[in-house]
Amino acid sequence: MKAIALLSGGLDSTVSLAYALWKGYEVIPLSFRYGQRHSRELHSAEAVVRHYGIDRHIIIDLDLSSYKISALTSKDVDVPMKRSADEIGTDIPVTYVPARNIIFMSVAAGLAESEGAEAIFIGANSIDYSGYPDCRPEFFKAFEEMLKVGTKAGVEGRAIRIEAPLLRMTKAEIVRLGKRFEAPLQLTWSCYSGGNKACGRCDSCLLRLKGFKEAGYEDEIEYEVRG
Amino acid sequence: MKAIALLSGGLDSTVSLAYALWKGYEVIPLSFRYGQRHSRELHSAEAVVRHYGIDRHIIIDLDLSSYKISALTSKDVDVPMKRSADEIGTDIPVTYVPARNIIFMSVAAGLAESEGAEAIFIGANSIDYSGYPDCRPEFFKAFEEMLKVGTKAGVEGRAIRIEAPLLRMTKAEIVRLGKRFEAPLQLTWSCYSGGNKACGRCDSCLLRLKGFKEAGYEDEIEYEVRG
Repeated sequence: MKAIALLSGGLDSTVSLAYALWKGYEVIPLSFRYGQRHSRELHSAEAVVRHYGIDRHIIIDLDLSSYKISALTSKDVDVPMKRSADEIGTDIPVTYVPARNIIFMSVAAGLAESEGAEAIFIGANSIDYSGYPDCRPEFFKAFEEMLKVGTKAGVEGRAIRIEAPLLRMTKAEIVRLGKRFEAPLQLTWSCYSGGNKACGRCDSCLLRLKGFKEAGYEDEIEYEVRG
Repeated sequence: MKAIALLSGGLDSTVSLAYALWKGYEVIPLSFRYGQRHSRELHSAEAVVRHYGIDRHIIIDLDLSSYKISALTSKDVDVPMKRSADEIGTDIPVTYVPARNIIFMSVAAGLAESEGAEAIFIGANSIDYSGYPDCRPEFFKAFEEMLKVGTKAGVEGRAIRIEAPLLRMTKAEIVRLGKRFEAPLQLTWSCYSGGNKACGRCDSCLLRLKGFKEAGYEDEIEYEVRG
């Protein structure tokens, strides 16, 4: 029983990976160097893979810097800083990378076919982060349907499943689940900025801090500011 | 009116690009360096872009060499050689790269969002090459549906269309259409091998030669063997 697990090195993808391992899958972690502003989260992904003693970690270079509109791939767009999670709106944020999950899942689907894997695990989450269209349940369903008709595996009746176990969880629930699995949350990186310490002021830091607080756990990574 | 045109440098994608230009689109050609065995077709893509005087050509590096099962990305799998197009079967061939069109179209979708383009042109063809699941009409429909729910453009009601104008054409019809558009067919490259001359014996060469013959035109590129 084999699965591909998308692993950014963040909290969510690490808990999603821990879940796949707990379910008994032989997991191939898949990460991307996609023109992120910093490679900090990729180092976290590598540390997580080492923690689990998984010997194969596929890192794919995919330069999306020709995408001009996202704060995560373009140096011309600033990551917005806020004082608390209450300031986070419901619009699609500027940190949205066009079609990022679509692209990552497509590459994962090809790898799943190549490896005979039956599932793709993704740490997407639609509750705390409903602003990203490619983090919503109806998107994952449509993607599975597309794979059914568009891949050799699908045509031959071995459909590739998309598993998004965190999809309907709050950040606090994700933290609790990670703690239950003894996932190495202290190795993960969520901050959109790339300093030595997490900034504590971007959307991603604020949601993470709020999640740990609500879950009743201390976040062991270092922050510039704890909002 | 803007469109992204997937351009491999082959006959089909070049005619598809010519079609998009003829329809009046401002076209951004998009090519990939994806661990093909050779870069011959990418040089053809560049020559086609120069021919049309298009100043922007996006080439994305995406190393799919971790996909082990395709003859086009793995050195461990041989490209099959045949004596005539009659020997080409209807099974999915070993030159199938898992999820390739899905991946290319996903990257194109992100670029379309980023550029405000409304359509993606792809030279896929389901008649002469029905063996590839991601070249079939039902796949393109499912992909469009997935984009509707999974992209910002889709959610905001600006759906990105997939245009596959050659989908139901025979190779001979594609050659005739290319000739009508005065597309630079002599600059294109279809061979799966990467010599100075096209091999004339792989599926792709055989289908191309048969297409030119049936269309009543001379194929101006050089071949090792004209089957």
